[in-house]
Amino acid sequence: MPLPLNPHRHLMADTKALTPRAQDFSAWYNELIVRAELADYSPVRGCMVIRPNGYAIWEHMQRALDDMFKATGHQNAYFPLFIPESFLAREAEHVEGFAPETAVVTRGGGKELEEPLVVRPTSETIIYAMFSKWIQSYRDLPVLINQWANVVRWELRTRLFLRTTEFLWQEGHTAHATVEEAEREALLILGIYRSFMEEWMAMPVLTGRKSDSERFAGAIHTYALEALMQDNKALQAGTSHNLGQNFAKAFDVTYQTADGDLDHVWSTSWGVSTRLIGGVIMTHGDDRGLVCPPRLAQWQVVIVPIYRSDEEQATVFEAVLALQATLREAGIRTQVDLREGMKPGAKYYEWEARGVPLRLELGPRDLAGGTVMCAKRTGGKESLPMEGLVERIQRELETMQRELFEAALARREAATIRRATKQDLVDAMAGPGGFVFGGWCGGTTCETEIKDQTKATIRLLPDADFQSPTPPERCIWCDKPSLKEAVWAKAY
Amino acid sequence: MPLPLNPHRHLMADTKALTPRAQDFSAWYNELIVRAELADYSPVRGCMVIRPNGYAIWEHMQRALDDMFKATGHQNAYFPLFIPESFLAREAEHVEGFAPETAVVTRGGGKELEEPLVVRPTSETIIYAMFSKWIQSYRDLPVLINQWANVVRWELRTRLFLRTTEFLWQEGHTAHATVEEAEREALLILGIYRSFMEEWMAMPVLTGRKSDSERFAGAIHTYALEALMQDNKALQAGTSHNLGQNFAKAFDVTYQTADGDLDHVWSTSWGVSTRLIGGVIMTHGDDRGLVCPPRLAQWQVVIVPIYRSDEEQATVFEAVLALQATLREAGIRTQVDLREGMKPGAKYYEWEARGVPLRLELGPRDLAGGTVMCAKRTGGKESLPMEGLVERIQRELETMQRELFEAALARREAATIRRATKQDLVDAMAGPGGFVFGGWCGGTTCETEIKDQTKATIRLLPDADFQSPTPPERCIWCDKPSLKEAVWAKAY
Repeated sequence: MPLPLNPHRHLMADTKALTPRAQDFSAWYNELIVRAELADYSPVRGCMVIRPNGYAIWEHMQRALDDMFKATGHQNAYFPLFIPESFLAREAEHVEGFAPETAVVTRGGGKELEEPLVVRPTSETIIYAMFSKWIQSYRDLPVLINQWANVVRWELRTRLFLRTTEFLWQEGHTAHATVEEAEREALLILGIYRSFMEEWMAMPVLTGRKSDSERFAGAIHTYALEALMQDNKALQAGTSHNLGQNFAKAFDVTYQTADGDLDHVWSTSWGVSTRLIGGVIMTHGDDRGLVCPPRLAQWQVVIVPIYRSDEEQATVFEAVLALQATLREAGIRTQVDLREGMKPGAKYYEWEARGVPLRLELGPRDLAGGTVMCAKRTGGKESLPMEGLVERIQRELETMQRELFEAALARREAATIRRATKQDLVDAMAGPGGFVFGGWCGGTTCETEIKDQTKATIRLLPDADFQSPTPPERCIWCDKPSLKEAVWAKAY
Repeated sequence: MPLPLNPHRHLMADTKALTPRAQDFSAWYNELIVRAELADYSPVRGCMVIRPNGYAIWEHMQRALDDMFKATGHQNAYFPLFIPESFLAREAEHVEGFAPETAVVTRGGGKELEEPLVVRPTSETIIYAMFSKWIQSYRDLPVLINQWANVVRWELRTRLFLRTTEFLWQEGHTAHATVEEAEREALLILGIYRSFMEEWMAMPVLTGRKSDSERFAGAIHTYALEALMQDNKALQAGTSHNLGQNFAKAFDVTYQTADGDLDHVWSTSWGVSTRLIGGVIMTHGDDRGLVCPPRLAQWQVVIVPIYRSDEEQATVFEAVLALQATLREAGIRTQVDLREGMKPGAKYYEWEARGVPLRLELGPRDLAGGTVMCAKRTGGKESLPMEGLVERIQRELETMQRELFEAALARREAATIRRATKQDLVDAMAGPGGFVFGGWCGGTTCETEIKDQTKATIRLLPDADFQSPTPPERCIWCDKPSLKEAVWAKAY
């Protein structure tokens, strides 16, 4: 069945312009989300409602990631929302990291519970309790599991998509026979996340390891992906953890090796969340609203009919619906805007705010000439022949996807300082922000002082792909020999 | 990337046969789920773990239903897990129905909450709070929203898939300008559910209205779908509610009509859950394990190599992988079982327990003859020519899908008594069970007495499609004139 002709009539145009990014980036971000109806504030403290326009982006993200996980042998499963409070305590670092931000169920079915249940902030503990039951022998390994779920972390300061008490995510959990295999898995996923962010979100990322102070509570290493938003603040977009044998030991997940010995499994966990929608907004959005990369857009094309008389309307509507059918058949996600009593300009304004990549305008003159007017969300308007339109539109969408990535990459590079001095770091953080690459002695004293004095944190110790060609020799802060190159930024 | 050659090595064959259905249906059901690794008990009271084999069935269900919802104009969204306790209380029947079975968060971020938060047992209240914000005018209607989510109802007696404290479901919530439109929506969804259950689950269902005592807390009508399991007990498989203006009034969801008046919206809600997996098991399973309808099966075909020597093994493995590639290319979900050191018979036993529709056995003799041996999960084994194999397998899968439905329908009809007398009802409930159709005076006295004396409840007042050709004239219990035909059964 087709969509109702008029599925958007409940969305009345709000004609007040967004606060410009340059004036107040944070206000712009919040207004854009509400204007484009991506999400809304809810009556529940710290929790948001993800509206259909926002959820559709999440569904495209899910589909793309899920396909990649499955193509590499992972399977989905589902574990309980509730975790006995005592489970969280079994891994010492883990409980320290998560206990302060948990929501706790103390009443069930009208009675006080004997043991309170924590609403999962992440599922390692409940999953390892199950792994200890399922895994006996090296033949049972590897176990490669992923879960799409909601999690809860009690946040004091919340931002739509970026930091909410409840959020949606996927969390992968794998168990392996060797430390090398677990490390390979953590890096495989890091690569999948990077491909996804670059190719689907058109969002360039740095990859690398977190410093010890920033790693996941319970991991031996945390790998991360960091993107630079338009306000030159970093967004941690995903993490992949090598958990070593920490959780295996806490939950006694052992297996019989091929030689007949008993050993603990080696494991990983990894996740990305609805925070990525915030990343799309802050990477590509402009002062008119969302700019959505075509591969993630709910609608890649919207067709707006142009007409004056009733007679024109009938002919044009018919042509618009026929064109929609043609584009949909070719797999192009196409919406039509047949609302009556609304001027084309008001429609353009609304669809721009929602970030639809291409707008087609079709009127009697276009019909007579066998053409259609095509406006790109990223700028430019051109009359296209109907002949060969499908291929042309597919090409335009691919080009826009690539150009969005290239523009974001150029912006990031322009906001990146390599081999920075202490003064560069201080100036950047007092001024424009951005990624600052410099040497690091490896000491937490320097890390803490930098954070206290500049508000910048080590986002990651970059992987080979992102390291400076000539590594810095001295620590950016204390001038002692550098152990590792590091990347600093202020972060969300 | 291909799946690892040996993704199932962690699954050791358990060679103990299942308890036969005829001996103890309930034991059979529980053992089957654990044996086929569909789900497992968790350390959290009343909560289960859905394992990959079970979750894959749920994913196929989700995809099919989601496509149908979207094709009829519904959009997905996501609302908060937590609901302020006071919201639940706003609709009087609703709070009475749900408050006794809620899980309540009283602590967050280390502090006692001022207002406790209920973990959603269903989302009407939080969604209507948002609708009151979003809906202003008749132009904003209809709102057609669906949510895929977890919900929690504190259950005292739990059964895997059928009744668990937490379960996964979808819940649709729609708002309309007129009562007629809301009624049409509730029936549209009932029809979608019926198609899905018949065509995907191969599970025949009765549709109809619930009696007042069985309707949803807060609805004016509840429509339901009821299926008959192999033990002749009914399973409520889905519900679709016409909520009238009850929630609109409780949450003050008003809109300006085209005439400029103010009115409350008319609304519906509807849902199906992971309980449906229990329905598949109890509709089609046999004493060897799950029988999964091809359209929902994680793997539709498994290929088992047959070989004696290393040389044979190399040739046969190559042929098995080539055949898998061919079948996958044609969209047939195909797994291979290349485990070494395990006899073919043990593999057959395992894949039968998991319900894979077709098993292909491929050995040197088959290769030489250009054939492959094909065993159907529902019985029968036949050598098929490799030539035209894809089409043949597609046909076999379609045939099996249809035959499973027909067999289930025949079984249900054999266990159905029409125009039953009081004695028929008593005897059926004391004996074999099944669906008993009879007249009903409409009185709750009869309804309650029947329940107390026979344990049967009115499953529904059947829709025209399922009513007896000649309607019963007298109430099955009190012999007064019948108002409606009703269907009784014992139920899960």
